[in-house]
Amino acid sequence: MEMKLPGQEEFEASSAPRNIPSGELDSNPGPGTGPSPDGPSDTESKELGVRKDPLLFIQLNELLGWPQALEWRETGSSSASLLLDMGEMPPITLSTSTHLHHRWVLFEEKLEVAAGRWSAPHVPTLALPSLQKLRSLLAEGLVLLDCPAQSLLELVEQVTRVESLSPELRGQLQALLLQRPQHYNQTTGTRPCWGSTHPRKASDNEEAPLREQYQNPLRQKLPPGAEAGTVLAGELGFLAQPLGAFVRLRDPVVLGSLTEVSLPSRFFCLLLGPPMLGKGYHEMGRAAAVLLSDPQFQWSVRRASNLHDLLAALDAFLEEVTVLPPGRWDPTARIPPPKCLPSQHKRLPSQQREIRGPSGPRLTSAEDRHRHGLHAPSQELQRTGRLFGGLIQDVRRKAPWYPSDFLDALHLQCFSAVLYIYLATVTNAITFGGLLGDATDGAQGVLESFLGTAVAGAAFCLMAGQPLTILSSTGPVLVFERLLFSFSRDYSLDYLPFRLWVGIWVATFCLVLVATEASVLVRYFTRFTEEGFCALISLIFIYDAVGKMLNLTHTYPIQKPGSSTYGCLCQYPGPGGNDSQWIRTRPKDRDDIVSMDLGLINASLLPPPECTQQGGQPRGPGCHTVPDIAFFSLLLFLTSFFFAMALKCVKTSRFFPSVVRKGLSDFSSVLAILLGCGLDAFLGLATPKLTVPREFKPTLPGRGWLVSPFGTNPWWWSVAAALPALLLSILIFMDQQITAVILNRVEYRLQKGAGFHLDLFCVAVLMLLTSVLGLPWYVSATVISLAHMDSLRRESRACAPGELRNFLGIREQRLTGLVVFILTGASIFLAPVLKFIPMPVLYGIFLYMGVAALSSIQFTKRVKLLLMPAKHQPDLLLLRHVPLTRVHLFTAIQLVCLGLLWIIKSTPAAIIFPLMLLGLVGVRKALERVFSPQELLWLDELMPEEERSIPEKGLEPEHSFSGSDSEDSELMYQPKAPEINISVN
Amino acid sequence: MEMKLPGQEEFEASSAPRNIPSGELDSNPGPGTGPSPDGPSDTESKELGVRKDPLLFIQLNELLGWPQALEWRETGSSSASLLLDMGEMPPITLSTSTHLHHRWVLFEEKLEVAAGRWSAPHVPTLALPSLQKLRSLLAEGLVLLDCPAQSLLELVEQVTRVESLSPELRGQLQALLLQRPQHYNQTTGTRPCWGSTHPRKASDNEEAPLREQYQNPLRQKLPPGAEAGTVLAGELGFLAQPLGAFVRLRDPVVLGSLTEVSLPSRFFCLLLGPPMLGKGYHEMGRAAAVLLSDPQFQWSVRRASNLHDLLAALDAFLEEVTVLPPGRWDPTARIPPPKCLPSQHKRLPSQQREIRGPSGPRLTSAEDRHRHGLHAPSQELQRTGRLFGGLIQDVRRKAPWYPSDFLDALHLQCFSAVLYIYLATVTNAITFGGLLGDATDGAQGVLESFLGTAVAGAAFCLMAGQPLTILSSTGPVLVFERLLFSFSRDYSLDYLPFRLWVGIWVATFCLVLVATEASVLVRYFTRFTEEGFCALISLIFIYDAVGKMLNLTHTYPIQKPGSSTYGCLCQYPGPGGNDSQWIRTRPKDRDDIVSMDLGLINASLLPPPECTQQGGQPRGPGCHTVPDIAFFSLLLFLTSFFFAMALKCVKTSRFFPSVVRKGLSDFSSVLAILLGCGLDAFLGLATPKLTVPREFKPTLPGRGWLVSPFGTNPWWWSVAAALPALLLSILIFMDQQITAVILNRVEYRLQKGAGFHLDLFCVAVLMLLTSVLGLPWYVSATVISLAHMDSLRRESRACAPGELRNFLGIREQRLTGLVVFILTGASIFLAPVLKFIPMPVLYGIFLYMGVAALSSIQFTKRVKLLLMPAKHQPDLLLLRHVPLTRVHLFTAIQLVCLGLLWIIKSTPAAIIFPLMLLGLVGVRKALERVFSPQELLWLDELMPEEERSIPEKGLEPEHSFSGSDSEDSELMYQPKAPEINISVN
Repeated sequence: MEMKLPGQEEFEASSAPRNIPSGELDSNPGPGTGPSPDGPSDTESKELGVRKDPLLFIQLNELLGWPQALEWRETGSSSASLLLDMGEMPPITLSTSTHLHHRWVLFEEKLEVAAGRWSAPHVPTLALPSLQKLRSLLAEGLVLLDCPAQSLLELVEQVTRVESLSPELRGQLQALLLQRPQHYNQTTGTRPCWGSTHPRKASDNEEAPLREQYQNPLRQKLPPGAEAGTVLAGELGFLAQPLGAFVRLRDPVVLGSLTEVSLPSRFFCLLLGPPMLGKGYHEMGRAAAVLLSDPQFQWSVRRASNLHDLLAALDAFLEEVTVLPPGRWDPTARIPPPKCLPSQHKRLPSQQREIRGPSGPRLTSAEDRHRHGLHAPSQELQRTGRLFGGLIQDVRRKAPWYPSDFLDALHLQCFSAVLYIYLATVTNAITFGGLLGDATDGAQGVLESFLGTAVAGAAFCLMAGQPLTILSSTGPVLVFERLLFSFSRDYSLDYLPFRLWVGIWVATFCLVLVATEASVLVRYFTRFTEEGFCALISLIFIYDAVGKMLNLTHTYPIQKPGSSTYGCLCQYPGPGGNDSQWIRTRPKDRDDIVSMDLGLINASLLPPPECTQQGGQPRGPGCHTVPDIAFFSLLLFLTSFFFAMALKCVKTSRFFPSVVRKGLSDFSSVLAILLGCGLDAFLGLATPKLTVPREFKPTLPGRGWLVSPFGTNPWWWSVAAALPALLLSILIFMDQQITAVILNRVEYRLQKGAGFHLDLFCVAVLMLLTSVLGLPWYVSATVISLAHMDSLRRESRACAPGELRNFLGIREQRLTGLVVFILTGASIFLAPVLKFIPMPVLYGIFLYMGVAALSSIQFTKRVKLLLMPAKHQPDLLLLRHVPLTRVHLFTAIQLVCLGLLWIIKSTPAAIIFPLMLLGLVGVRKALERVFSPQELLWLDELMPEEERSIPEKGLEPEHSFSGSDSEDSELMYQPKAPEINISVN
Repeated sequence: MEMKLPGQEEFEASSAPRNIPSGELDSNPGPGTGPSPDGPSDTESKELGVRKDPLLFIQLNELLGWPQALEWRETGSSSASLLLDMGEMPPITLSTSTHLHHRWVLFEEKLEVAAGRWSAPHVPTLALPSLQKLRSLLAEGLVLLDCPAQSLLELVEQVTRVESLSPELRGQLQALLLQRPQHYNQTTGTRPCWGSTHPRKASDNEEAPLREQYQNPLRQKLPPGAEAGTVLAGELGFLAQPLGAFVRLRDPVVLGSLTEVSLPSRFFCLLLGPPMLGKGYHEMGRAAAVLLSDPQFQWSVRRASNLHDLLAALDAFLEEVTVLPPGRWDPTARIPPPKCLPSQHKRLPSQQREIRGPSGPRLTSAEDRHRHGLHAPSQELQRTGRLFGGLIQDVRRKAPWYPSDFLDALHLQCFSAVLYIYLATVTNAITFGGLLGDATDGAQGVLESFLGTAVAGAAFCLMAGQPLTILSSTGPVLVFERLLFSFSRDYSLDYLPFRLWVGIWVATFCLVLVATEASVLVRYFTRFTEEGFCALISLIFIYDAVGKMLNLTHTYPIQKPGSSTYGCLCQYPGPGGNDSQWIRTRPKDRDDIVSMDLGLINASLLPPPECTQQGGQPRGPGCHTVPDIAFFSLLLFLTSFFFAMALKCVKTSRFFPSVVRKGLSDFSSVLAILLGCGLDAFLGLATPKLTVPREFKPTLPGRGWLVSPFGTNPWWWSVAAALPALLLSILIFMDQQITAVILNRVEYRLQKGAGFHLDLFCVAVLMLLTSVLGLPWYVSATVISLAHMDSLRRESRACAPGELRNFLGIREQRLTGLVVFILTGASIFLAPVLKFIPMPVLYGIFLYMGVAALSSIQFTKRVKLLLMPAKHQPDLLLLRHVPLTRVHLFTAIQLVCLGLLWIIKSTPAAIIFPLMLLGLVGVRKALERVFSPQELLWLDELMPEEERSIPEKGLEPEHSFSGSDSEDSELMYQPKAPEINISVN
């Protein structure tokens, strides 16, 4: 079951690495430090080297039903009789058995005895008295640190060497402790299966681990080198006084079948005593186990040299515990593991902190993040001041990595990444190609889209600064091309030659931007600008998708009862001219009426296509209508939209194994298109289909692959093209660079650095190439690139119950992208199949893209806040720090900006909209007069100047309001997820 | 933000009173005790009388920025400068101000200073050291119990009378304490608004409550009689040693503007001292406030007579706290209030328990529930052993309440209940009437449905044992009537006379069942039977809805490109017979082609209706097709279904105020029908519409309101009708009685008792009446009756933040139902409007009903478990206690039973399905051999015999597995919600 924690919602939609390890695990060098390429590129091995203390698996074994203890036997037998009632359960002699009931790695798991399964991992809760009782028991008991025991037998002998025990009792106790405990075995059978219950003699080979210990599924989850800690607790009737022992073994040894999983044991804790009220020893045992599972206590107790150290560690634990009042919290409620564990950094004494104790580098990176309020990696975006200085620096930075960019791809994971990204790329190529063809009357098309994607994408992967980027037709470029086409039509221009000049100019302008290192200006694009950009493009997508769909109802009108579109008959030019005659031949039956020629020599009721075939002419208003297409198209449109949306949501559902869920949601567009095609093919109606040329040639009939430089246009249009090119350059720059910033964020821990200038240079070169060939234009696409990176995540394999996998980095290489685009190029030969795709399905996917992009931005969340009563609003951080009216004001300003952009977009001056998008930066600057830097920090991000205008300290939200804000949960300051899909793609 | 707690999910879908008060509140006598009708029927007044201790509002005022304390000023001024940065915030002199930062009623609320709003209520978390420091400060400090102070001045004088203070310091301290604290005022303006900051002299009228204290919205939420407790904490530079004081006022007095809300103060706690590391006093103050907000501590401290008692209460609190380990829980995370508070019963010492301390009667009812594992109220279902004994007892029980059944309706709430239930009833009447008309070829219809609902419903409300029940055509009866109709058609019977005899026989059988007190057998209908019943009917609904929709595509075929359905022309019988001639007249333009007569004397291209009008005959395959209707119907069907589903979900969304959400979800069917009608009217296509007679007469043409006893049927069919009548009797009995049991559940705290036998008697009589008049048959409908009861809930008005409203009972009366049915009767005259409702819309609602009913049963949840990996399964109680394979086995058996029922339903023997439903009881009995009673207790309920077969103790799930199960959260044992909608209605 999932429990949402405060503030998590803000990051939910993201796919970013959220759970940075809680301290026990890896320690990659920070991304800003720029490691040398000569180091080991596969850092998985490092992970183990850096980890100071091994992971500890702790289990609580409980002694049940000692026959001498009448009270115990009573409870035990009652329990046994109930167990026997339950059916074919094998009879259990409970007399002297040790049961494993709880276990811990990070969180507690409890064995549900009746259900025979381990509970979901949960945060352990303790009662305060049990901790206090444990403390006094340990204070009086036996504490052996660095015990040299090499086997369970030796250990038991050491532990029972207590004065208070008579030799007879000692023997009895030893026999008891050497018993093989009963572990619940998950692998064999489906009913709870318990180990052998017969007490074994000490002479048996009790040190040999049992088969089920190896088969335990938990074993695979624990990282190599993990150690075990065992707590044995229970009531023993023959004991006169409590017996407490705490042992730290000098060398961890496998203590036979003591532990559920065959692991070398490091800690051993014995808590036995005469019967007491309640579940005293059980709870004490749980307390001891919880203590051992605490990283800070573990750290201390591994280094403790005497009892005093042990007790000091326990007291330190007590100092730090969180207390819930009994009247407001049910102690038996299970709290699911929080998504983010608290940082252990603060808990360490300064000396420990220096030697990097149990806490990993997590807080360092978190501090980094807050210090650079902006999301842009700062190093790569420093101005050098020299012409092309940034580009040269980029090349210098990336060149040494070039060989490893291919070697690092030699991993199985890259295969599945290729498959996934290939399908996504092809889907994109089809959708955008289809829509471009639609928008440009075939000047672009699916074939061009395939070819362009393959050529541009592969070239980019080979040359670019950030080879993980996937080039694609993006929303903004699609919108601009549409506007450019209608502009050129308005002036009766030959589109492709005009477009060629626009491309030439754009490439020139982009080169200027590279030369002047303009990419550093990307820091002025704050979330406000990004969201305005994204929202506008998404809205255009939604509007266009719905509009195109409704247009179909004009092409295929709906036949209303009043509209007399029934009549249609087929008229042949009579052979003799005027001498048509009515011949009375009764049709044999009703169905025969088509074939009959109506008794007219030169007319029949043949349907229009057949009529035309036979040389006739369909006559009548009913001939020109194609019924049912409008509504069926609408159905296809809605089906593909909702199906894609639903599949997207499957990822967070509870159903199916995670592989299936991931597959369904990753391929939601592909599956939705396939469903639409299937539905269309099933009914076989004449819906409008995707236009694909029959052979490998441009979609526009009569043109070659090279665009002629002037065509029928006057020469001066090639100069005038500079104006729209300026607008497109703004768009390309914004689209490319905002995406690049998102992809190069600190959270992804990229090792090989970014190349903002180099990327833009590549885009400029490819712009030229695609314009010359008349192919679509390409820039980096956010969503698909993020998916690419996500499919190349390196994660720690070992994963304790309740813990999320640890993100280690990304496999940075050029090969996956390259292979994807080569495959895309090869898919051109599949193009003839594409003509079965109905256009309404593509419109549905188009709508889905717009809605998905729109719903991913924080702006949308704030718009939703407008509709929510304050009581039901989620506990977002920004709501804790900014008054609601200020939040609403900010949202309202955004809405107004969006409204203005929309108005411009609807006028004939629509083509200047990139300029207006740039104007958002100015609006954002003006907002500094309305909102305080603190408010802007929460609602947006800070611009470079603002950063300097408030004191250093103020940039870390934790410190901005000393009195109250430190109570904000630390987990709310998790790295920002790449929640902004700047462009729809 | 909502955090789901383990086990809550199981009860989420329900509308039952879930949050039974946490102890501080009301104490209605248990429902089994049968209160006398002479007692006060409106028990709201009792609520106050029974409550022992008033509710306590606690607030923590913090002293900020004392100028002598340099460290403080530093922090303070930094904070102030930041506040000033924030815009137009009025400048604040922080020198000597008391700020309210936290408040408690049940849960903690924290003031988000920057955002200027109170946080959502959350479970308070404390650090252990602050509790310990508080304890030592109180142990050394001043404790005044029953302090006679009458004003803040007196109180401050009393508190500062400490030896350690010099007179000068005392004066300074007094002046400080008499300062008016700064409260955040929610009502005025939208930015945080603080009270006056100027220190006032003590001579001011500081005792007069401020205006904002009265305007505080919290005031309306607190019940009358609530008291306040104030904690003042802070660091004071001039103090040499800590100063702690705890005061219990003898008589609560309003201490001027000390508290945020003007309430008489009972407790006052002062925690001041020299500056210390961290937020020591702040946290100590929070600890004191949390202590005071604990019901158990409050109870003790109200009765404490000395310091020792106070400390003992604190120690008792410490004994009970829940401790979370620091490494696994972030102490700053806010835990939302649990849906159910833990029972305080266990925490009370036995002596307290007897005098009913802070804990209310909650556990009693919880124990009741577990003891009678079954959901049926036991008293009314005891067999008397005499003929009609149960009926007589029912009448005797209900008769004394009869006058109050009308007087109790005099409440405003009943008006809104009438409106809501009227709309629901009318929607039901339309839907079921339409579907019945569809299924019986017009033997039933909407008019009959309106008339029958009005007559039967009103009569039932006047006579029945449980007048809150709403009669309706229910799913099972509808299914049976459909089967009966096709049966009678198979034997070419005159339907209505045959149906009359079936009705007569059913009435007879039901009377026999009443006479023999057969209703007590309802205890054998466990959840297994109910769910089988419900699932079958729901599936039939879903199947029929989809089937009817697909049937429309046969009536209105889709025109595929190949299907030559284009040709159609209008042929007139030629005046002269054979002498038709082709005359060449060219049409003027294309649109003119309709009016032109094609050059034939006796043919034109007029559309079929006009052709027929002009005496022609439409000829050709295209004449008989109505295009677009099939897909448009499908769209209407899907739209109404999804819209109704979506509106239903609005209730649990975060958007809109709760009134709007409730309205949208309550009227989801009505709104969906309206949307469908609007869409249909907008496009104006000739979709199939609901058949409604033009005047007030039966839908079947040519019959009067009275059904003739034999019609054209042979006389012996009137005897043979006994056989189907037997089947229908089983169905009616099951449907009626299971619904009655659900409606009379203990959780609803009905005061006036149930009348199972009387209800069945009424149903029998009405059966006769409706059969004679040829109206539909009626039984109690679960969903709408539950909605009726829900709209008549009495709830406590006072509602502390974070607490759910307390359920007090239901307004039990006959008037709302009566008025609803009178209105329904009057609505017959609206019937002509109904002919605008398209049938596909009704099919959509039909589908929605089936899906909603199916998804409401636990069976569906268990089927979903089959698809869920164990890791993602919700933490359901049954999964903790029954092995997963056993759960799956149980689900599989249910699936097989359902499959068998479905097979029977698909054969010609479908009509015997009620017998098979009864067979489920036998299957359930046989399951006792497969499953243990414990498993059945969790998966189902126990049947009467099983109840005796396991020991008393075993029936309480808490005790069945002594070792482990007591760790189950108590909140999981909340009363079962009426999750089963036994019939689709």
